[in-house]
Amino acid sequence: FPTPTLFTEMDTLQREGDELEWKESARWVKFEEKVEEGGERWSKPHVSTLSLHSLFELRTCLQTGTVLLDLDGYSLAQIVDDIIERQIEEGMITPDLRDKITFVLLRKHRHQTKKPIHRSLVDIGKSGSSNGSEFPPVLQLTSRSMNDISDTPSTDQLKNKFMKKIPRDAEASNVLVGEVDFLTKPFVAFVRLSQCPPGEWTQNTIPLFLFVLLGPQGKAKSYNEIGRAIATLMVDDLFSDVAYKARDREDLIAGIDEFLDEVIVLPPGEWDPKIRIEPPKKVPSADKRKSQYSLNELGQMNGSAGGGGRVSDDDEMPEQHELGEELAFTGRFCGGLYLDIKRKLPWFLSDFYEGFHIQSISAVLFIYLGCITNAITFGGLLGDATDNYQGVMESFLGTALAGSVFCMFGGQPLIILSSTGPILIFEKLLYEFSKKNGIDYMELRLWIGIHSCLQCFLLVATDASYIIKYMTRFTEEGFSSLISFIFISDAIKKMVGSFKYYPINTDFKPDDVTTYKCECVAPDPSEFMGCFGGRGGGGAVDWSQLSKKDCLRYGGSLVGKSCKYVPDLALMSFILFFGTYSMTVTLKKFKFSRYFPTKLRKLISDFSIFMSIMTFVGLDMLMGLKTPKLIVPTEFKPTRPDRGWIVLPFDKNPWWVYVGSAVPALLVTILIFMDQQISAVIVNRKENKLKKGCGYHLDLLWVGVLMAVCSFVGLPWYVAATVISIAHIDSLKMESESSAPGEQPQFLGVREQRLTGLLVFILTGVSIFLAPILKYIPMPVLYGVFLYMGVASLSGIQFWDRIKLYMMPSKHQPDFAYLRHVPLRRVHLFTLVQVTCLAVLWILKSTFLAIIFPVMVKPALPSAALSPRDLIQQETFDQEIFVSPSMVEHRTSRLENQLGNKTNLSITLILYFCTRLT
Amino acid sequence: FPTPTLFTEMDTLQREGDELEWKESARWVKFEEKVEEGGERWSKPHVSTLSLHSLFELRTCLQTGTVLLDLDGYSLAQIVDDIIERQIEEGMITPDLRDKITFVLLRKHRHQTKKPIHRSLVDIGKSGSSNGSEFPPVLQLTSRSMNDISDTPSTDQLKNKFMKKIPRDAEASNVLVGEVDFLTKPFVAFVRLSQCPPGEWTQNTIPLFLFVLLGPQGKAKSYNEIGRAIATLMVDDLFSDVAYKARDREDLIAGIDEFLDEVIVLPPGEWDPKIRIEPPKKVPSADKRKSQYSLNELGQMNGSAGGGGRVSDDDEMPEQHELGEELAFTGRFCGGLYLDIKRKLPWFLSDFYEGFHIQSISAVLFIYLGCITNAITFGGLLGDATDNYQGVMESFLGTALAGSVFCMFGGQPLIILSSTGPILIFEKLLYEFSKKNGIDYMELRLWIGIHSCLQCFLLVATDASYIIKYMTRFTEEGFSSLISFIFISDAIKKMVGSFKYYPINTDFKPDDVTTYKCECVAPDPSEFMGCFGGRGGGGAVDWSQLSKKDCLRYGGSLVGKSCKYVPDLALMSFILFFGTYSMTVTLKKFKFSRYFPTKLRKLISDFSIFMSIMTFVGLDMLMGLKTPKLIVPTEFKPTRPDRGWIVLPFDKNPWWVYVGSAVPALLVTILIFMDQQISAVIVNRKENKLKKGCGYHLDLLWVGVLMAVCSFVGLPWYVAATVISIAHIDSLKMESESSAPGEQPQFLGVREQRLTGLLVFILTGVSIFLAPILKYIPMPVLYGVFLYMGVASLSGIQFWDRIKLYMMPSKHQPDFAYLRHVPLRRVHLFTLVQVTCLAVLWILKSTFLAIIFPVMVKPALPSAALSPRDLIQQETFDQEIFVSPSMVEHRTSRLENQLGNKTNLSITLILYFCTRLT
Repeated sequence: FPTPTLFTEMDTLQREGDELEWKESARWVKFEEKVEEGGERWSKPHVSTLSLHSLFELRTCLQTGTVLLDLDGYSLAQIVDDIIERQIEEGMITPDLRDKITFVLLRKHRHQTKKPIHRSLVDIGKSGSSNGSEFPPVLQLTSRSMNDISDTPSTDQLKNKFMKKIPRDAEASNVLVGEVDFLTKPFVAFVRLSQCPPGEWTQNTIPLFLFVLLGPQGKAKSYNEIGRAIATLMVDDLFSDVAYKARDREDLIAGIDEFLDEVIVLPPGEWDPKIRIEPPKKVPSADKRKSQYSLNELGQMNGSAGGGGRVSDDDEMPEQHELGEELAFTGRFCGGLYLDIKRKLPWFLSDFYEGFHIQSISAVLFIYLGCITNAITFGGLLGDATDNYQGVMESFLGTALAGSVFCMFGGQPLIILSSTGPILIFEKLLYEFSKKNGIDYMELRLWIGIHSCLQCFLLVATDASYIIKYMTRFTEEGFSSLISFIFISDAIKKMVGSFKYYPINTDFKPDDVTTYKCECVAPDPSEFMGCFGGRGGGGAVDWSQLSKKDCLRYGGSLVGKSCKYVPDLALMSFILFFGTYSMTVTLKKFKFSRYFPTKLRKLISDFSIFMSIMTFVGLDMLMGLKTPKLIVPTEFKPTRPDRGWIVLPFDKNPWWVYVGSAVPALLVTILIFMDQQISAVIVNRKENKLKKGCGYHLDLLWVGVLMAVCSFVGLPWYVAATVISIAHIDSLKMESESSAPGEQPQFLGVREQRLTGLLVFILTGVSIFLAPILKYIPMPVLYGVFLYMGVASLSGIQFWDRIKLYMMPSKHQPDFAYLRHVPLRRVHLFTLVQVTCLAVLWILKSTFLAIIFPVMVKPALPSAALSPRDLIQQETFDQEIFVSPSMVEHRTSRLENQLGNKTNLSITLILYFCTRLT
Repeated sequence: FPTPTLFTEMDTLQREGDELEWKESARWVKFEEKVEEGGERWSKPHVSTLSLHSLFELRTCLQTGTVLLDLDGYSLAQIVDDIIERQIEEGMITPDLRDKITFVLLRKHRHQTKKPIHRSLVDIGKSGSSNGSEFPPVLQLTSRSMNDISDTPSTDQLKNKFMKKIPRDAEASNVLVGEVDFLTKPFVAFVRLSQCPPGEWTQNTIPLFLFVLLGPQGKAKSYNEIGRAIATLMVDDLFSDVAYKARDREDLIAGIDEFLDEVIVLPPGEWDPKIRIEPPKKVPSADKRKSQYSLNELGQMNGSAGGGGRVSDDDEMPEQHELGEELAFTGRFCGGLYLDIKRKLPWFLSDFYEGFHIQSISAVLFIYLGCITNAITFGGLLGDATDNYQGVMESFLGTALAGSVFCMFGGQPLIILSSTGPILIFEKLLYEFSKKNGIDYMELRLWIGIHSCLQCFLLVATDASYIIKYMTRFTEEGFSSLISFIFISDAIKKMVGSFKYYPINTDFKPDDVTTYKCECVAPDPSEFMGCFGGRGGGGAVDWSQLSKKDCLRYGGSLVGKSCKYVPDLALMSFILFFGTYSMTVTLKKFKFSRYFPTKLRKLISDFSIFMSIMTFVGLDMLMGLKTPKLIVPTEFKPTRPDRGWIVLPFDKNPWWVYVGSAVPALLVTILIFMDQQISAVIVNRKENKLKKGCGYHLDLLWVGVLMAVCSFVGLPWYVAATVISIAHIDSLKMESESSAPGEQPQFLGVREQRLTGLLVFILTGVSIFLAPILKYIPMPVLYGVFLYMGVASLSGIQFWDRIKLYMMPSKHQPDFAYLRHVPLRRVHLFTLVQVTCLAVLWILKSTFLAIIFPVMVKPALPSAALSPRDLIQQETFDQEIFVSPSMVEHRTSRLENQLGNKTNLSITLILYFCTRLT
């Protein structure tokens, strides 16, 4: 059975006035925190750096001192008595020392506590600096009872703060070191009590382990170091195990030797012992160390041949199998779908209650704003493209409907459905085609939707999604980079557009203000009478009173220097756009700053987008300029008055259209299949540590169903939106609360639930009623959010990291695992090929070929002979990576082959497609 | 005599096809760089982490193996022969192994080199990634000759790049480890040649030290670790000393034991051996380690009682004495001045030639722009205050004259003279007084200048500046914070002002553009005829054609909605202002990024201000808006036509004015004395590591002389400007080029010279001719530079660091030395008192009392009973700080006393002054 965690407190004997007392000088939960001498404060948790000397001295101490294991002692006095008795028995001390030693050992214990004035001053500092490590009431509680004297009572509140940092089943050990004048040689004892006294550990009256070192005067420093050495040993996972199970002194000595075998040695000339080493991001687990020890694989330090790479975490192996299973070809009808449902159903309930977390609020707000911006943008474009058959209203309703259904029942509820570019272009072409050929657009569209839905069902029933399994990092990265670039370029284009829409009069001179005007001039009188006479009854129109629009409407012309200029709006838009973006970036990074308590920082970081939007909406309101605002439709009716909510399938088109629409439907299906499943692969990638599995077949089923439904009510079609989905995941990432002081928080995974997505789309649906609030949000602020989304989704991509490598001298490059194993020139070559492919894709995207662009990424698929999982798995950067040395060579060569083959094949195929298409 | 630096190369025996060969696997200049297995590249330099095991095994190896010291060998074959001979003699190997071992040891050596394809690809990456650590031609050269086979010849260019990193007198050591199948027990040899072969080390045919370890198969990893251990030892300062001087095997073993005594041990459970530890900022010097070792003060790690604090660097102690000396009270007439001249004279020549450095160009541009902005701002204000008796023209000339004279002859040429606020207010009051009382202003001013000059001479002659020595960190920080805040607030005020100057029409609706105009309306006809009829001969003025100014001049009135608005300019100004500031900040930080080679990054960082200014000047030109530009006077004549260049001392005022002006002169003298000397203390502070000393008395002498001269030619008075002087110093800071790969650059000091200052002021003087260029610079850009100067000068102040502490939870606080020793509540209290004082000063500054504000900081002076040097010295943050343990207690208590007494006294005195004055 696993031994409980130990934490250790070290007290040193000090003379306070005439009184001797034990004063707490350091503590170890996992890392060392010492009491700063003058500072009356705890140091930051740091790695204990020991001297070899002290470890050897400790070894000697344990060899010569008293070791009492499984002592039955329920009071300190009794334990001290037992120790002294044993020492006298063994002739190590003379009986006359008994009283003196007992006296010293039972002196008052003083703990590192705060004075009232300190606290009040900290409170003046109005920050949470009273939070955390300053108050160690637990240790105080633990050992207070050692003599039932404690100079400051600790409140429950304080207790809880420190208690959180220690596992509930932790047990205490205590180290007492000091120099006294009556001893001529050290008095050493190591005591383990027979059992952990009953009750919670906070009620423990006595620590389970006790190490005492009293010695002659003059060597306090050395004693102190020995005390630190044993304290560090006690919190070591392996040694504490030994300490719990030791049968005799020899077991303990062997434990120290094992520890010594494993220690890491820094040469004195290359490191300064005074530097406090910050705890590393990750330490090897005790299990790994144990197995390493048993395999006698010691001595492979960072310089050794086997350095680098990684060993999978405990929970990663099964997941890998699962992922493979999710995309396995079952060979049965709907086999994949059945497994998807079977996999997701058990999580269905937790998908809701796990959504109740403050982080969800920020995620909902963030994604909601992204979604409605997208809905308005695409709605507007779609309205232009289809003469308002589908407009902003339809876009809102469709987004709400499709999104909420998908989030409710889809296989991967973290995916956000949205309008995408290819679909928009398809609709545009379709509308033009039907208008030219006199075919009813809505009915044709309905039939395409029905066919496409059926085709999707076919793909689901035959487990066709399994081919996605062969998608490589190359394709995945290319796709998501491209989408991110499109996001970024769209945001910037929109911004630049506002400079065109609100032209700035760069020749304006403040002194010439009198020459700037814009007058509405009546058209030529003859014309004027002809077309306008009937209205006013006598042409008694005051032209100068007309607004710009009216003037143009009535045929007037605008004359004057200022007519074509709009002051301030373009620059204000720029300030709002850039301000929102940079404030979001800054606040997002705030998590890593030193200010404020961790919780608050995390909150600020989580709500960075919301806070930036609020700030710049506020600024915009304050300025009062007429910047373009977010306008959502307020009335529930189709954008085009002559269409209803239901599209009927028959009557308007000839019969062959119903059949023939299967052909364009095939294109739509391929388009949707690729778009949907590539986004799903990106969302489900291993780096995100998803635990509830995914459901590619189930996803596609619902996308198909929604296609049909949307076609019936005349709403746009929806498919997974890569960038918004990534943003969704990013806003739901969880980190561990650090357990021991100083331990780095680990990325745990994503809050996988359906609630946030559902809320986003419900909010989108009711946005029609939120118009009075939403109208305060300027569009440039939302474009800023778009820019942020694009940039943020780029930063998670290895491709992007590799591009950055080009600009770094090799000595400054980060210590990525693949850089240790793959030659730099190969990495650069691989990146270069990717860049070229992307550039080609970008050019294609910018031409009329945009519609087949998702099909374009397909050629890269069959080129990968190996599963891409290895690549994805091998190259995680967020964490330090370890490979068991035996696997390195194998992996390296495979990796190289993979890189080589794949790129060559991919580029050939893509170029082949390009030439064929242009 | 000191032993030369060693660098070590480690080769491992590897089988390449059928051939055995020695392949370079790591090298040590000071830190370890290993060849990544797959990567064919050098790792980043890192601290060698060893296992204790390998060190003990190495010890055994040296105990049992062959140790040949002072061997006379000039070829590898001969050395190998000697080793084998000895081993056979001692019966360690059988003679039949001779050939096999010789064969293996003389195998080809292959070095970590690049293939052509690699280089060209790196070049494609168009960065300097080919720079630095990739090519180790030196080591290759060194050992190439070992068998005269080298597969790639290295070019001179490459050689030079790596050579720079190694001291010229460095010598080589070589470690060869490998496993062979014919041995049953390890074959170990440690060889030292009798002497370093003559010639430069690059021509060394054989390394001075050679360690060979061949062993039976199956333990390659272990051999590798042993090789790393000896290599690490060889580059250790103390062990290499031992290796040079060892007489026998025992000396070497003792050297290892000494090393082991000093090693730093990290517990395996708290650290991961796979992590490559970056080289620390500073490592303890060998001297310190030696003395520590001899004092037997081992084993005090960071957790020990004596941790923290610092030991002074070698060159700091004398400097401290010198500083004291500079402000010592000599008691002789002009004693201080004489010493100042004596101290500065020897540097006079180097003050010029040391200015020739690329960094000087950026410093000159930066400070020049700061100076002319200041000159224009203050010139404008002064012109307003004195009815143009002193205007922008005088301000330019005065700045140029005073600044260049001071930089040429002053005691501390890094100080920049400039107009300051208090002087401005004084001039304003003086002008009002003289106007009201009918006294000639220029003559009165001349007399005040003369008196003040004489008073300065008196202060110089009596060494009065020595009282500055008693100035505390409290005063110094208060003063410089206040000046920085004034800079920041002025910059922001100016920016806000532009929103008032160019009001934005927030009600503008693009559609209503027709209703916006501004027309010039003729005044009432009757009036119009009366006052204007005579001009046009019949009033035939086309009012609508008049510009705004003309319209108002002729008495017309402006009617229309757009009259009081100016479009775009305010927002554009804001973008320029904020853009310049944030781009400067960003580029300044670029030095710490990973991109581009170090040199380029440093250049970008040094020229950050210039690049930002250029960027935003370019943007402004591109936009073409009429933002307010920098306009310098172009004609060389006094601003006010009725004054000449020379002010005559007599005739205009009654005689008593000549005498009475001594009273206001006293105020000016105090004001100038305080302003000048506090700035000088800030410039000369220890953190700046100035080496050429300063000259407080000499400074004051020249300020006095310039007072008189400026008064005679009717130019403003000048005194040291704190913020610009700090900016000057910051832009001239030097850092060491890192010597060994991985070593952190150290702050070395400031380029102390007279050239940059001189150039700045010469440029200022000729700015009149630069008007055509300068007119492109928008004022908001310069305000952005002002803001940056203010913020940057704040960041060097400990006070500011302490304010930030309020917002940090104690566990996140940086590891400042004073936080280890002074309780946090005392630090907070001290800061709070400072904040209060500053707030009081700020309020005073904002009232009419501004003029006596520099006098206000005086009360803080006598309150310090102790020299402030200790405080300044103790609390340097840029570097890790160490105190020898014995000094800690003493210092801590003194520090506490100091903080306590000083603050209490200071605040009492300041508050007393406040009440008396208000």
